Amino acid sequence: MMQKKLLLKVAFVDGLGVLDGQKPPCECNNCYTGKDCSVLLKDCPVDANSGDPLFLEPFWMRQAESSAVLVSGWHMMSYIYQDGTYVSRELEKVIRKLHSVVGNAVTDNRFVIFGSGTTQLLAAAVHALSLTNSSLSSPARLLTSIPYYSMYKDQAEFFNSAHLKFEGDASAWKQSGRNDNITQVIEVVTSPNNPDGKLKRAVLNGPNVKTVHDYAYYWYFTPITHPVDEDLSLFSLSKTTGHAGSRFGWGLVKDKAIYEKMDRYIRLTSMGVSKDTQLHVLELLKVVVGDGGNEIFNFGYGTLKKRWEILNKILSISTRFSIQTINPEYCNYFKKVRKFTPSYAWVKCERPEDTNCYEIFRAAKITGRNGNVFGSEERFVRLSLIRSQDDFDQLIDMLKKLVSEEAVGTDSI
Amino acid sequence: MMQKKLLLKVAFVDGLGVLDGQKPPCECNNCYTGKDCSVLLKDCPVDANSGDPLFLEPFWMRQAESSAVLVSGWHMMSYIYQDGTYVSRELEKVIRKLHSVVGNAVTDNRFVIFGSGTTQLLAAAVHALSLTNSSLSSPARLLTSIPYYSMYKDQAEFFNSAHLKFEGDASAWKQSGRNDNITQVIEVVTSPNNPDGKLKRAVLNGPNVKTVHDYAYYWYFTPITHPVDEDLSLFSLSKTTGHAGSRFGWGLVKDKAIYEKMDRYIRLTSMGVSKDTQLHVLELLKVVVGDGGNEIFNFGYGTLKKRWEILNKILSISTRFSIQTINPEYCNYFKKVRKFTPSYAWVKCERPEDTNCYEIFRAAKITGRNGNVFGSEERFVRLSLIRSQDDFDQLIDMLKKLVSEEAVGTDSI
Repeated sequence: MMQKKLLLKVAFVDGLGVLDGQKPPCECNNCYTGKDCSVLLKDCPVDANSGDPLFLEPFWMRQAESSAVLVSGWHMMSYIYQDGTYVSRELEKVIRKLHSVVGNAVTDNRFVIFGSGTTQLLAAAVHALSLTNSSLSSPARLLTSIPYYSMYKDQAEFFNSAHLKFEGDASAWKQSGRNDNITQVIEVVTSPNNPDGKLKRAVLNGPNVKTVHDYAYYWYFTPITHPVDEDLSLFSLSKTTGHAGSRFGWGLVKDKAIYEKMDRYIRLTSMGVSKDTQLHVLELLKVVVGDGGNEIFNFGYGTLKKRWEILNKILSISTRFSIQTINPEYCNYFKKVRKFTPSYAWVKCERPEDTNCYEIFRAAKITGRNGNVFGSEERFVRLSLIRSQDDFDQLIDMLKKLVSEEAVGTDSI
Repeated sequence: MMQKKLLLKVAFVDGLGVLDGQKPPCECNNCYTGKDCSVLLKDCPVDANSGDPLFLEPFWMRQAESSAVLVSGWHMMSYIYQDGTYVSRELEKVIRKLHSVVGNAVTDNRFVIFGSGTTQLLAAAVHALSLTNSSLSSPARLLTSIPYYSMYKDQAEFFNSAHLKFEGDASAWKQSGRNDNITQVIEVVTSPNNPDGKLKRAVLNGPNVKTVHDYAYYWYFTPITHPVDEDLSLFSLSKTTGHAGSRFGWGLVKDKAIYEKMDRYIRLTSMGVSKDTQLHVLELLKVVVGDGGNEIFNFGYGTLKKRWEILNKILSISTRFSIQTINPEYCNYFKKVRKFTPSYAWVKCERPEDTNCYEIFRAAKITGRNGNVFGSEERFVRLSLIRSQDDFDQLIDMLKKLVSEEAVGTDSI
């Protein structure tokens, strides 16, 4: 009852229709309609595209009382905190504590930097690392491993800096003649990887190589194999607590000069991160570290494990579609060997004629993300498994239909 | 009593020491110390540097009940709102209403775009406008009028884009041989101007000229002479409600293609503005428009008018320092002729030997901002008048001392 009350009171405080003095309408999940959002639209394509982490919403509804925060009208109006910076020291402390209780990253001798999402920090990191002496003559090359998160490429191409050029796959570069140990290189390592959930290591090394580690998914999606201890690591609130809308990410940076360049980037692009956001994030992370991460890790892993079991069961009877498999590893957090439960299914269409896997799924009313977005082949499609329960249930319904048609197809040969 | 209670409860919810289970310490204003922050430090230099708009804090303390907002732990976790965008439509509506009740801008046939402060929108606007055909061969030139807000220059030089070059003063460019009507030019017009508070118009025009209008201060700091009706106008929450820490700004954009380029910039640099911030801003602006802007305009104008009267009185007996004067104009908001009450005093050191005005004031324990930061001479210094009452009172004390020394100096000749 308590939850219900909060739901009605707060959920729609900034919903449509509020200003007109109307009672705000229910905001229905995708494909649902009607006064109480219980009517499923026929032939509505299920959204399995973006990594909107709404699977964690029920967790925060359970924590409604401990995680709510009252923001007064005169809260933190200043540009800066008491210490003259844009960064809440309390939030920095709770982030260090979070890494310590989870055991996924070393924070000693690291500067902590905040950004408006990892999105902003990525741009800041790449910008800072590209400002080297030798990049003045020839641009630094941005490399990563196929399949990769497209933001790396999109940002580099959009900013179109004279100091940076996106070059695609790191292994291909390593084997090419252009790998001359002189050209400045920035490698982005995403571990676990988006889209396929695999743990990754840097491909390149040498005095001309700088590395950015994107650890957005190094939480309950994967066994925590060791605390990472890199020069420049990025994390995202979106994939930690599920609050994508808050636009908050942080970085752990070893080198002072790089930290200062990133800090200047953040100051000149947004003058720091919203203090409303920093306050909200502080409250959320206090809840998370309060029990050593126990509840959210069990909820996150538990939910994803169930979803993967359902998905694997359906696809086990398919010969048309295959999916990534990753061997279980020992998890230092759970103190046991555990399975990988990635955010996304990285699906391959196995039939020679199914050259565009995205289109095959689209015809089956499932909107995924085309493999070519990740620098890979169109024979792959990424399906998001971290969306709301409604989206997942509907995805499963559509998948069942698609896979059941296989048998029919085979019969008719 | 109610206010006092809220003060104790909320002000330090993210203050230092909270995580250690200690009672958070009072956060004292600059130059004050002691358990209850009532002890003024001796010889402490007053900060009159940044435009931190804390003069509005008492206004929001008065509005404590109507402007507070409860953010639930599961508020708007998604990247997007119901309509699939990063933008709260309710907030967009209240912003259009705000311009309509104040009468300072036409919003019809305009796209509204949100940013993490005007800082981000400025970068987005300049980026969007610099992406023209002819800028591919030669960079677009960024121009403004001296004295100017340094962010324009700082951003352009920091991003160091092949498509953009900061060129300084628009009038100097107009008179130079380089004004060829072919080179792409972006002029930033700041009105009222930072630092001197004057209303400004574009200097340049022609088919090769694009203009960005920075209207951050076009509120109670100045007579509202007419509703502005430009192609690209930027506004800042910091100078509207005083919430600099929330990092929120908005733009009104006429051209769809430019709006879409700016939108892409915002998406690729931060994936939109924090939903916590958007919710907070919605609540604040609802309070402002609730009475047609009446209370905040009267408070803002009233406070600044008093401060300017005090300042003018002190400086009226000085021959060493002069200050900008602007003739009163008719204000459509107050329906009467009113004085200008700019955010900053733009002070000139008149004595030939006082070549560095910033240093003269620094020696007198007043930290302003050097005129050269604004592209002007060091003979000028900017003093911020919109900081807390404590800062202002202290500034006045120090100024009185400085001006009183003039008389002594004259006597001794």
